[in-house]
Amino acid sequence: MIFPPWKGYFSAVQLEQPSPSQASVTPMNKAPQTAITPTRSQDYPEWYQQVIKHADLAENSPVRGCMVIKPWGYALWENMQRALDKMFKDTGHQNAYFPLFIPMSFLEKEAQHVEGFAKECAVVTHHRLEPDPETGGLRPAGPLEEPLIVRPTSETIIGAMYAKWVQSYRDLPILINQWANVVRWEMRTRLFLRTAEFLWQEGHTVHATSEEAIEETNKMLKVYADFAENWMAVPVIQGEKTPGERFPGADMTLSIEAMMQDRKALQAGTSHFLGQNFSKAQEIRFQDKDGQLAYAWTTSWGVSTRLIGALIMTHADDDGLVLPPRLAPAHAVILPIYRDEESRVQVLEYCNRLKADLGKVAYAGRAVEVQIDDRDLRGGEKKWYHVKRGVPLRIEVGPKDIAKDAVFVARRDTGESTSVGRADLVANITTMLDNIQNNLFERAKKLQADNTVTITNEKDFRAYFTPKNADEPEIHGGFALCHFASEELVQPLLDELKVTIRCMPLENNGPGTCFLTGQPAERMAVFAKAY
Amino acid sequence: MIFPPWKGYFSAVQLEQPSPSQASVTPMNKAPQTAITPTRSQDYPEWYQQVIKHADLAENSPVRGCMVIKPWGYALWENMQRALDKMFKDTGHQNAYFPLFIPMSFLEKEAQHVEGFAKECAVVTHHRLEPDPETGGLRPAGPLEEPLIVRPTSETIIGAMYAKWVQSYRDLPILINQWANVVRWEMRTRLFLRTAEFLWQEGHTVHATSEEAIEETNKMLKVYADFAENWMAVPVIQGEKTPGERFPGADMTLSIEAMMQDRKALQAGTSHFLGQNFSKAQEIRFQDKDGQLAYAWTTSWGVSTRLIGALIMTHADDDGLVLPPRLAPAHAVILPIYRDEESRVQVLEYCNRLKADLGKVAYAGRAVEVQIDDRDLRGGEKKWYHVKRGVPLRIEVGPKDIAKDAVFVARRDTGESTSVGRADLVANITTMLDNIQNNLFERAKKLQADNTVTITNEKDFRAYFTPKNADEPEIHGGFALCHFASEELVQPLLDELKVTIRCMPLENNGPGTCFLTGQPAERMAVFAKAY
Repeated sequence: MIFPPWKGYFSAVQLEQPSPSQASVTPMNKAPQTAITPTRSQDYPEWYQQVIKHADLAENSPVRGCMVIKPWGYALWENMQRALDKMFKDTGHQNAYFPLFIPMSFLEKEAQHVEGFAKECAVVTHHRLEPDPETGGLRPAGPLEEPLIVRPTSETIIGAMYAKWVQSYRDLPILINQWANVVRWEMRTRLFLRTAEFLWQEGHTVHATSEEAIEETNKMLKVYADFAENWMAVPVIQGEKTPGERFPGADMTLSIEAMMQDRKALQAGTSHFLGQNFSKAQEIRFQDKDGQLAYAWTTSWGVSTRLIGALIMTHADDDGLVLPPRLAPAHAVILPIYRDEESRVQVLEYCNRLKADLGKVAYAGRAVEVQIDDRDLRGGEKKWYHVKRGVPLRIEVGPKDIAKDAVFVARRDTGESTSVGRADLVANITTMLDNIQNNLFERAKKLQADNTVTITNEKDFRAYFTPKNADEPEIHGGFALCHFASEELVQPLLDELKVTIRCMPLENNGPGTCFLTGQPAERMAVFAKAY
Repeated sequence: MIFPPWKGYFSAVQLEQPSPSQASVTPMNKAPQTAITPTRSQDYPEWYQQVIKHADLAENSPVRGCMVIKPWGYALWENMQRALDKMFKDTGHQNAYFPLFIPMSFLEKEAQHVEGFAKECAVVTHHRLEPDPETGGLRPAGPLEEPLIVRPTSETIIGAMYAKWVQSYRDLPILINQWANVVRWEMRTRLFLRTAEFLWQEGHTVHATSEEAIEETNKMLKVYADFAENWMAVPVIQGEKTPGERFPGADMTLSIEAMMQDRKALQAGTSHFLGQNFSKAQEIRFQDKDGQLAYAWTTSWGVSTRLIGALIMTHADDDGLVLPPRLAPAHAVILPIYRDEESRVQVLEYCNRLKADLGKVAYAGRAVEVQIDDRDLRGGEKKWYHVKRGVPLRIEVGPKDIAKDAVFVARRDTGESTSVGRADLVANITTMLDNIQNNLFERAKKLQADNTVTITNEKDFRAYFTPKNADEPEIHGGFALCHFASEELVQPLLDELKVTIRCMPLENNGPGTCFLTGQPAERMAVFAKAY
């Protein structure tokens, strides 16, 4: 492998690698091989599971469909929370906390809502356990008068409180967000992407006018797009869902959609304009400025731990996780290299000083976080441990480096490495991290651009979404931009090809001709296979 | 009311007020009255509910026993979380997240544990809802093979994961904390103090030796005591629980106990040494340095939103909430005062500049947070709104103040107020906040000291815990320090007087003579009525 010169660190973007598969880093004295088996091209779904396992992000628990988020994965989630929480507060929202349980009767109030969630919810029916004489174990006892649902989303329980809180136009708007766990009894689960319990935030707002509620719905979609692109380095398409894909009970659902490395789409966040549906079902009314009683207008919006799945599938490579620096739990890891006790003391002292110096630099709103890995492991094992965990920069320090007051630095995203003077490293660390952040974003943006086409007829549409090779059923075209006359008309073809309408992009959209029927079409949508 | 001179702000501690009831602030042109009705001495339990209501901290929800934590209360909890989380991380712990649900069979594994929690837990028995032809509504469907318990605490589900993660002594210690919601089906609930669902953190650690696990148990008790005293300004007694009061499944339970203003005790945090009880029940075993398979030693420790109840009952007065500055969601509120549009522009401009200047000052790890309340409300109404919410400093700014480049500042804790030059305020804000923080702590410490006695015989014990006045059944002695021969011997008397053994203090304790039996006693305990 060729190590580019130091200036390489300061080039804004590195796009020389073929995309999506990046040249893997080659371990010394070995034939080229990857740290993750299988590779993306061999078996993408299994590669995804192995990346999570080797990065120690999460694992399945003994409770069906519920995952354990391990410290490295949870630290990533905490960084996501911190950035999002600030964006919510900067846009005028406050946090609060509402009950985990929803009385069954509350769910019944909004017809479409119950339709959407009744089929997959955890139901609490008893409030204690008692000895079971038959089995010698325990059995549920103390039946509840009314069953409780573990919240799959909180529109109904929060709406019940809002109905009490809202009396007058002076009480509006209400702009509240909640960080919480929710449960949806999914039958097929996959770590982060689809789990029975997941962590999320759900914003719930109440407004005096339709216009203001729609403005809020749009504003929060923009916040999500900003977070996805500028923190996660995941480029997204902002759009509106077709009626059939709306949140149950919404008048309009907006979403951000990202392209994963297998070219499938992943919905990364949604923002819903709920009209007066929930306010009518729950009597959220207020006296307006003219003294008239009016139903309020509500919105809700959320992102979840699913974002971690999106991050992995956007940036990870055949050597494991690749973390965008702005969200990485550690920006750099220092690996001390020494042979004997004397050099050990000297090297560790140098490493600790370097860590302290780097820790004085601020990056993306927090101090640069550096770990020193002084475990008693072979150097190769240790290096690959951190490569697989996706730490943006790996710094190696041995006696020879110290003699030059320099260290060996390797980038996780490109594999580039070089020797850097200690002072230079401290002075340029934020630029180096920014370069990685930008490279990840540009690389993902290029993947999306290279795999998005405009299609105007059925033949091309079929060809685009038909796997080229029976061995690789997952490999298909990517995103197709097509005008369509109506959801109903295209649905049979979509079902046949296992393609879905992701969203109707908010930008650069307008009337045209339906790719399938030739009829006039109001708007274009992104069509794709999806998670 | 007499306003003390400016130097009053810089006196380290203000103890002139009678404790526990502080002289109330008198509204202009009215007979002395309080913002909260009833007062503490009139009806302490109802006063508590009214303080929460008027400070807008929380309220009951339609779900029995579950509360809604409103923005002002949740912001307080977030500040508590931030401080505690840093203390946990500084002592080497990492956060993770484990499932909400616990299979029923897991709870059965530890005999004492199930005994402690089976009687009050939410049981999930179904995973969907279906139309109920009888009622026209919904009914539970899709019965689960094994019921799931909503976690009342997570020793069993976390232990099941630890059993997989721990193989060798090299995997130890495991030092993990979780921020989560838990559910205990309490029959009598009270906001923050006892609710069916509450928010908490639970630390769960695994160690190779008993000594190390005991050291961890002690270390985390010290962290809790540090947090209670230095952040919440709540003085606590650190002690060990008697066997009958231990956590179900623990070999030793340590707690911090605080005295509320009605002189009852409130357990504010617990740290448990679990011995090998859970590791044996769940097979948490490791190969030690000699290659032998050994059971690990575990601990757990937690504090919850109950701390908010402790904070309220320690510091609030007859005018409402009083917040310790280090945890207050806002350190100061600015009330602009103006008569016309011209002065409005001038005053608001001045207020915004003051807020920006104060915001550049750091206090207790974050920027000084200032709110400007420019709502269209009468001055008195606005003032009392913030008094009841407990904001440490109230700043009033009118044209006459601006002419002098000075502002009117009032302390929430003592009611003192004075005119302060703008530059002086910015220069001295941290000292002023520290003075309030220290005053709250010293005031609470004095209450505890004034109401703690050593008792050596039954007659004095009975007298101490018997209300002096039938009209005030809640008013009694306070804390009694007594040597006792055994828990069993004193229990009948305690049941009669509704007194409990809070803990055996870790400091200044040793052998003596039992207050009840005259027998030799190993240690002294704190006896008190309790929440």
